Order: sequence, then C-alpha cells, then structure tokens
Amino acid sequence: MSGAVFSELDRCFRYGDGLFETILFVDQEPVLFDEHILRLIRGVQRLALDYVVDPANLLKRCRLARNTATELASAQRHVVRVQLSRGEGGRGYTPPDPPSIVREVITCHAIPLIPDVIKVRLLDTRLMISRLLCGIKHCSRLEQVLAASELLTGNKNGSACCWEGLMHDELGFLIEGTRSNIIIETKGRLLTPLLDRSGLRSTLLDSLNASNAGSEAVKSVRMRLDVDGELQVLDQVLNDEWLPADRLPPTAWEACPIDGLALCNSVMGVRPVSELAEIKLPNGRLITNFAAELNARCGYA
Amino acid sequence: MSGAVFSELDRCFRYGDGLFETILFVDQEPVLFDEHILRLIRGVQRLALDYVVDPANLLKRCRLARNTATELASAQRHVVRVQLSRGEGGRGYTPPDPPSIVREVITCHAIPLIPDVIKVRLLDTRLMISRLLCGIKHCSRLEQVLAASELLTGNKNGSACCWEGLMHDELGFLIEGTRSNIIIETKGRLLTPLLDRSGLRSTLLDSLNASNAGSEAVKSVRMRLDVDGELQVLDQVLNDEWLPADRLPPTAWEACPIDGLALCNSVMGVRPVSELAEIKLPNGRLITNFAAELNARCGYA
Repeated sequence: MSGAVFSELDRCFRYGDGLFETILFVDQEPVLFDEHILRLIRGVQRLALDYVVDPANLLKRCRLARNTATELASAQRHVVRVQLSRGEGGRGYTPPDPPSIVREVITCHAIPLIPDVIKVRLLDTRLMISRLLCGIKHCSRLEQVLAASELLTGNKNGSACCWEGLMHDELGFLIEGTRSNIIIETKGRLLTPLLDRSGLRSTLLDSLNASNAGSEAVKSVRMRLDVDGELQVLDQVLNDEWLPADRLPPTAWEACPIDGLALCNSVMGVRPVSELAEIKLPNGRLITNFAAELNARCGYA
Repeated sequence: MSGAVFSELDRCFRYGDGLFETILFVDQEPVLFDEHILRLIRGVQRLALDYVVDPANLLKRCRLARNTATELASAQRHVVRVQLSRGEGGRGYTPPDPPSIVREVITCHAIPLIPDVIKVRLLDTRLMISRLLCGIKHCSRLEQVLAASELLTGNKNGSACCWEGLMHDELGFLIEGTRSNIIIETKGRLLTPLLDRSGLRSTLLDSLNASNAGSEAVKSVRMRLDVDGELQVLDQVLNDEWLPADRLPPTAWEACPIDGLALCNSVMGVRPVSELAEIKLPNGRLITNFAAELNARCGYA
C-alpha cells in the first residue's frame, strides 16, 4: 500500500472522475501491458486528463510499488492497481482550469482467489447504455458495485452464491460479468458480446485483434441469454440503431444451443464455466482449445 | 472546509461509491431540507449503505460545519455539501462484509454565481440510460463532468460559452441540464421531462408533489428538442417500453412551439432562460408566473 491520502476536494472522491487499470505481474513482468496502456490512453483522451501516459516510466513505478508490499515478497504473481484522479478542485462538475495535477496512485495486491470450478448466474442488475462511458475503465463504477452486491446474495433456495454473475444491458443484450468478459461457443462459433454502447473492453480480447487468427476466432455480436439457458444471437449489423431486442424482425434471430461458456479477464485469463444458473454446461471443444491456447500464449497456463 | 483526509481505500475515491446533497441555507435555515433528506434516503436504500439518515442530527452537523467556514461569516446565503462514502475496503467492487463505517463529509461553500440573463445550448454529451442510477444523487458522476467540460468550450463561431447546457439521453429524449432541471411552457402547459430511466430527480420539483396545485401545474412527459428549437412532446404513457423516439407511431407526436423555458435547482430556484442556441426565447406567461410563485414560496424570490 502506498498509504496515499486525499482531501475531500479530490475529484475521484467527489465524482468518480478518474481511471484505473489492474495489471497482472508474473515474476515481476507485466502481462498484457500494451493493452492496459492502450486502454488507459483511450480513457485519458475520453476524460481529457492533463496526463501523458509514459509506458516505460509507469512500468518502473509499478515495479517500485512492489517493494513496499512486503507481504507479497514471496508471491510469484501479484496485481498492480494504477489509479489516476483528475486531481483537486473545480467549480462543481466543471474540471479546474488550468487543470490540477493528475494524481497517480499505485498499489500492489495479492491475486484474488479464483475457484477451479466456476459457476455463474444471471443478475437482475442491468448495465447502463452509455457510449460515453463504455469501453474505458473509469472510476464511476457504482453499477459494478451494486451488481457485485447482488452477486453476494444467494439464490432463492438459499444455496451458495456464485463466483460471477452475468449482466444484460438496459436494452436486454448480454454484455459481461461484474469483473469479467464473456465468450460463448455455439454452433461451431465463438462469440463475444458487442461492447459499443455498454460494458468494458477486455484487454485480453483486445490482444487478439493483433493477430488474424484471433480476430477470426472470436466474433463480437449482439446476443441475449435467457434464464432457461436459451441463447439468441443476432449476427446482422445493426448500424448502431437503437433497436430493442423484442422489436427485431423475427428472421434476424436464431435460438442457439450453448456448447460452452468461458469468462476472461487480464488477471485470470480464460476460464471455462461449469454451471449457469445451476444448469451444467457442456465443455465445448472450441472454447476449451481456445482457452488453452490463449492462456499459454499470454502466460496464464 | 472540514479538512478531512482519506486513504486510497475509500470507496468514493475508488469507485464513486457514495452519495451527496447540496443544500441551500438562507440565514442559517435550510431550504427544501425535507426533499433533500428524502432523496438521500432513497439513495441510501438504493446503495444499501449501512447508514441511518437522522434529519435533526444531520441539520445540526450542517450548522456546525458553517462555523469553520470563516470566509462565509457575513454571507446571508451559503450552500452545504453533504457527502456519504461507503467507507473503506472490500474485495474489488464487492462492498465490505461486515460493512465499513460510512464516512460523512460536510463542507460549506459560497453560492455559485448565477447570471441574471441565462443562455443555454444543446450539448452533444448524452445521458446514460440506467434505471439503477437515475434519480439518486450518487458520486459516479463522470458524465456530468464530461458534459460540464463540453459546456465550457465555446460554440463553432468561437463566441462566449453558455451558462448551462441541455442534455438528451441515449435514446434521444430531452432530460436535464448539467446541474439543473428543465421546465418548458408549450401550448398552455408546463412540461418537465420524465426522469424514470435517466437524469436526477429535482428536490424543487419534488416539493410540488406535496401540493395539488403543483402536481397539476407541471406534468412530466417524454419530449425531444431539436437544435432548431422544434419541440416534440409525447404525452402517451409508454408503459416503460424501450421504444426509440424515431420509431414512435407518428400520431403520438406533435411539434410544439416553445413558449418559455426555465431551469431550476435547489440552489437557484426557478430561472427563466432567455436564449437557446443563440435564439431568443419568448417569456411565457405561465412559466413566468410559475417561477415567481415557486420562488416566493420556497424563499428564492
């Protein structure tokens, strides 16, 4: 811990006016560092922060922060959390002019516990529709907080809660987990939700865009997942129209079997899911191979 | 200023996980205090904060905070900002269990400058669609920050910027200003935008619900306002369907003249607007009378 302290004038404290990244380090080496840097740059541009992202310098500071986390001394893996706050002041919502000094807080943490067998359920909490805020890892994360709270409560039978919950957006499309992205295998294809107006872009999936194999392997589409496990996939390009799910022409939809489901994020890699809403899921061949390959390539295996 | 300090573990700092209210005090007496308390209670319930709202006690602490703001000693009016943070800790987004102690920060500030002649323009920044977050005054306010930044920049001719900007939501409906609510006079009616899936509920307009006169005076409907000043009002109840504006049956719409426009919030009361996007607006009789009456009743006159 850096032990940094802030006044109540700090804009992250007042308005969630900042960004963060959580980066996995294995043997002091960052994983997917370029993708984290690119997402951070996108966020800095979107928020118009007065901050120049200097990857080499940031990496140095991430490594320095490790030295203060003595409890992690023997850990082979740890995560580094980098948070940027716009700094202090400004009249109300308006950012200060000239800009304040952007505050950078770097802390080190143990790897979160990830079970070997992952069970998920669908959450009632809906993700906001916001082309302004989607994609970037900003600090206005109240809906993830409320989704995580919902995830903590057990199901109606009082049985154990799940490790992760899947969320739809306000228009009814499947988007992501509270802290992970989703990959679904169906009919010989790997699909991920389109994240152009809701959700957080995955550094892990972004890393696939660099390779042709990757961009062909996983296709982003709009999809809906019902509680009974029925999957509806819409492959047609919507041209960014605000077409609610239940008003789509019926021919645009197809009900698909779920042949496999996986979660991914930059800390845990790709993890197959064994149960959705207490229903056992098949171990799809495609998604199993994909997980193995990607985990090996990125150092999660 | 209270001079309070926080660690980087504070959940408002990390995730915008808290609430605030900005309350006007006139001669040490709060204005619309009940409505602020009610909105705070709604927020505490929505976020499931471990905090009991005690109005008498909170008022006492607001008055005590005034004593430390020596620069306001001779001011007849000031504002008190009350912020609640969920406190420290928790694993990632998940709130700590058992809950941390909710942090309460109370600060006093001078009344913001409000020009006599108010000009507004339409902003490009769209408000999120989120039934989860709309209505409550939470601390995840990044879209207001970005809207306020857009407001600061002059128009394409480089002329002076406006005091306030009006915002539509992601579905194209008119919602609110960056820090005020909207009232429009058209064809003998006073209308305010429906705020059931976007925007912040106004304490000032909420105060009208207590009186029959009020609830009849201002009707909440979905409406759209084009840059050329054309107003479209949809009076039909939509039954909370996600029906995009441009897919509405044409008969549901009527183009209306804007006979008057006003902004309101709990610090400035109701203020008529003189220009929208550099077009002079009429001083509607209804809205002028309404502003005078409400300002007198609530102590803004």
